[in-house]
Amino acid sequence: MSVQRLLLLEAKFKMHLLLNEDKEIAIAKINPHRDFYNVRKVDTHIHHSASMHQKHLLRFIKRSLRDRVVIFRDGKELTLQEVFDSLRMTAYDLSLDMLDVHADNSTLHRFDRFNLKYNPCGSSRLREIFLKTDNMIDGLYLAQITQELFADYQESKYQMAELRVSIYGRDKEEWNKLAKWICDNNLYSDNNRWVIQIPRLYHVHKRTTSSIRVFSDMIQNVFEPLFKATISPEEYPQLHLFLQQVVAFDSVDDESLGERKIWKDPPTPDTWDSEDNLPYSYYIYMMWANIHVLNQFRRERGFSTFALRPHCGEAGDLDHVVAAFLLADGINHGITMRRSPSLQYLFYLEQIGLAVSPMSNNALFLQYDRNPFDIYFKRGLNVSLSTDDPLQFHMTKEPLLEEYGMAKQMFRYSNVDLCEIARNSVLQSGFEDCVKSQWIGANYYLPGPSGNDISRTNVPDLRLHFRWAETSLEWRRQLRNDRHMTLEEEQSYVAEW
Amino acid sequence: MSVQRLLLLEAKFKMHLLLNEDKEIAIAKINPHRDFYNVRKVDTHIHHSASMHQKHLLRFIKRSLRDRVVIFRDGKELTLQEVFDSLRMTAYDLSLDMLDVHADNSTLHRFDRFNLKYNPCGSSRLREIFLKTDNMIDGLYLAQITQELFADYQESKYQMAELRVSIYGRDKEEWNKLAKWICDNNLYSDNNRWVIQIPRLYHVHKRTTSSIRVFSDMIQNVFEPLFKATISPEEYPQLHLFLQQVVAFDSVDDESLGERKIWKDPPTPDTWDSEDNLPYSYYIYMMWANIHVLNQFRRERGFSTFALRPHCGEAGDLDHVVAAFLLADGINHGITMRRSPSLQYLFYLEQIGLAVSPMSNNALFLQYDRNPFDIYFKRGLNVSLSTDDPLQFHMTKEPLLEEYGMAKQMFRYSNVDLCEIARNSVLQSGFEDCVKSQWIGANYYLPGPSGNDISRTNVPDLRLHFRWAETSLEWRRQLRNDRHMTLEEEQSYVAEW
Repeated sequence: MSVQRLLLLEAKFKMHLLLNEDKEIAIAKINPHRDFYNVRKVDTHIHHSASMHQKHLLRFIKRSLRDRVVIFRDGKELTLQEVFDSLRMTAYDLSLDMLDVHADNSTLHRFDRFNLKYNPCGSSRLREIFLKTDNMIDGLYLAQITQELFADYQESKYQMAELRVSIYGRDKEEWNKLAKWICDNNLYSDNNRWVIQIPRLYHVHKRTTSSIRVFSDMIQNVFEPLFKATISPEEYPQLHLFLQQVVAFDSVDDESLGERKIWKDPPTPDTWDSEDNLPYSYYIYMMWANIHVLNQFRRERGFSTFALRPHCGEAGDLDHVVAAFLLADGINHGITMRRSPSLQYLFYLEQIGLAVSPMSNNALFLQYDRNPFDIYFKRGLNVSLSTDDPLQFHMTKEPLLEEYGMAKQMFRYSNVDLCEIARNSVLQSGFEDCVKSQWIGANYYLPGPSGNDISRTNVPDLRLHFRWAETSLEWRRQLRNDRHMTLEEEQSYVAEW
Repeated sequence: MSVQRLLLLEAKFKMHLLLNEDKEIAIAKINPHRDFYNVRKVDTHIHHSASMHQKHLLRFIKRSLRDRVVIFRDGKELTLQEVFDSLRMTAYDLSLDMLDVHADNSTLHRFDRFNLKYNPCGSSRLREIFLKTDNMIDGLYLAQITQELFADYQESKYQMAELRVSIYGRDKEEWNKLAKWICDNNLYSDNNRWVIQIPRLYHVHKRTTSSIRVFSDMIQNVFEPLFKATISPEEYPQLHLFLQQVVAFDSVDDESLGERKIWKDPPTPDTWDSEDNLPYSYYIYMMWANIHVLNQFRRERGFSTFALRPHCGEAGDLDHVVAAFLLADGINHGITMRRSPSLQYLFYLEQIGLAVSPMSNNALFLQYDRNPFDIYFKRGLNVSLSTDDPLQFHMTKEPLLEEYGMAKQMFRYSNVDLCEIARNSVLQSGFEDCVKSQWIGANYYLPGPSGNDISRTNVPDLRLHFRWAETSLEWRRQLRNDRHMTLEEEQSYVAEW
């Protein structure tokens, strides 16, 4: 059934364009002042340590070549000059080819090699010095790069981001260190909110960190500090402040790795002491359960809450997407759903947000012209465009615009299409209600055209009317099927409801 | 035969990559300082009046809203404010949707509609005010925009352009006016050389300009002033100065229009008084003949000479490409050759430069993933990437990088591939020998690795050795075929030669 409904939705959208695209474009044209460049766009999926443009990182490294002790390696304290000497390089010599952080043909279907690209010059030293928050110089360089990045966002005015930083769950001090780094370096921007990514690395911690004995040790390291900071914010002033800028949790790692499937009677976290990792769905459930309780707790105290927006469906089995459908507020990628009409249809009905990064997929898992982004968009799924890792995939100083530009070229999007995608990105994001009202309209949470303000979104009501009419129709159809109603029964039911 | 040779060349290149790509990348990596960002790239095909980014033009228009008489229309002198009033707009209202200069779905296979996009807000007034050199304000605004553009090029340091400006051939004063505009506004940049484009519009001039009676009137208007300025430069100081910055002639118009085919006994230009236009090949021959004589004339006097690099093979019949093969030094587009292996092979053997603009083609004539650029590149044709009209096709402030970036994504190019394409663009360009030596190596005119300087081009000798070995092989093969030589005869012939 799903496949037919989806094909029908796609056909109807194409029909809508054939009949109404001229009108939509004309409406957007007489809409004063606003165009695609000055509607708000949120980069809904971007990793902090790869958020800068490669040329930006290179210039920063060259600029930073002062004599300051930056790292402790092989029993010695090294200055940056000494690190370069040990790598047999001078700052003048350094080129982007040497830096070697850009995805290339060697990374296709090799997430492991892609991960190595995070090391500038293939050297974990430079990664530690420039791209880590917790190093000998207290993450000073990464803080400076981040400030420059924020300045760029602010200058562009209409581009926002949700930068992801890692919490590993190896010990309980991670949160305080991260919060200290953020607060001490004053890393706040109106154009950014933070997302916390938890790498699914229990099996690694188990081997390397003596304090991680069972799976629940890791989970406790991640969540206990948050409960504590929520109970007594005065004891954790920096963490409390930082948490107000955190809007969501993400779960990250290579989804294409094989994994043990779900059990009939799954183990509890405090009994899992195996050296093997746990499956994706287990992680997601544990994160959801903790975030759910934490949110209730925070809501009671009048504090901000967190969404769960994991990486999901970039590769690997479809049960990842099933788990996320049940538990997540939105996902990143979701391209494996191209193989499952039923899941696609469910995501459509629930309008769960998908932050897709076709240029990243193209480098890692799926050729651009086979990316399902366009089909999802036409069928009416709630999709946005995001960059994932500008350091590794993009060419210009405006990575998000480059991402939109490539989609425009490949899928022949009009400005109206692009503005609809930009509006989706604001809806999916974790920016506060009052901010979203400013950006896309006071009633943005209402469905269809009533939630639209063309003077802010540049999306004609006509487009959102079409989308809403279709979604309502599908909902009513499902309702009728679920309850075995006749058409008459359904009509009276809907009228009442 | 050609198709087999081309397929073989393609297969060999793929083999070369499988065996040597790692090596090439490693060589480029240890090449100090140089990477794709700081090798020189020339935008070998870009039209001056669409060379600015759309946001640049919009901002400039908004900034220019001062009270200055800018145009004479409908019997009145109008200030820019009055022009906006007559269009019922304020500068604040103005958006890119209104400006409407970006190619969209309506332009696909409709060159006529594309041409209308040159009019900001669909209004020829704004085109005349902002994008013409010959208007009431003496092209002041376009000169200011050009200066800003030059400043951007200079800041980027490694990006060069060959901006095309039009000479129509309606009267003999056009050259002096253009030269005056260039010199009075000091429009010189180390990063730019000028190309003159002659629109193939005899039939329009014949109807609208009383002085154009026969075809040779137009040709004389184009070339006579150049001969005069070459004979007595002291009488035409500004034109003489300007001509030193002009490096080539281009021939432009919609190639997809139907046209009368070539005659057995073609008319001479001074007898063609019909209201119909002449075919593409006739124009190209006339341009070639005049440029050829003019060049000899200028060379004798120690002055600079001009190349013929027409638009060719964007659409329309293949005889356009045949004509260009016989007469041109390089062409823009050339994508219709995908249908003709013989022509492709001839362009390969002669290494005639092709300045291809896949993003422009995608908007007008050919979907990106069907663009032959990648096949041409793999087979070893001399191809470069160019933007054509950033105003109409590109999204970011770095259009040429965006063009390279999209090709990189679509065709999975390595940095070595991109640097080879950038090197081709310098070779194809009209910059002076001494400049090219600086940019790509002192012996750049030599074939194969002997012409390469990796410290400037970032292209490993390995790549150019492969290309040169293949080209030599094909040449020797042709030689043997042409002269019906045996392999032995050929070897002794080559040894002697």
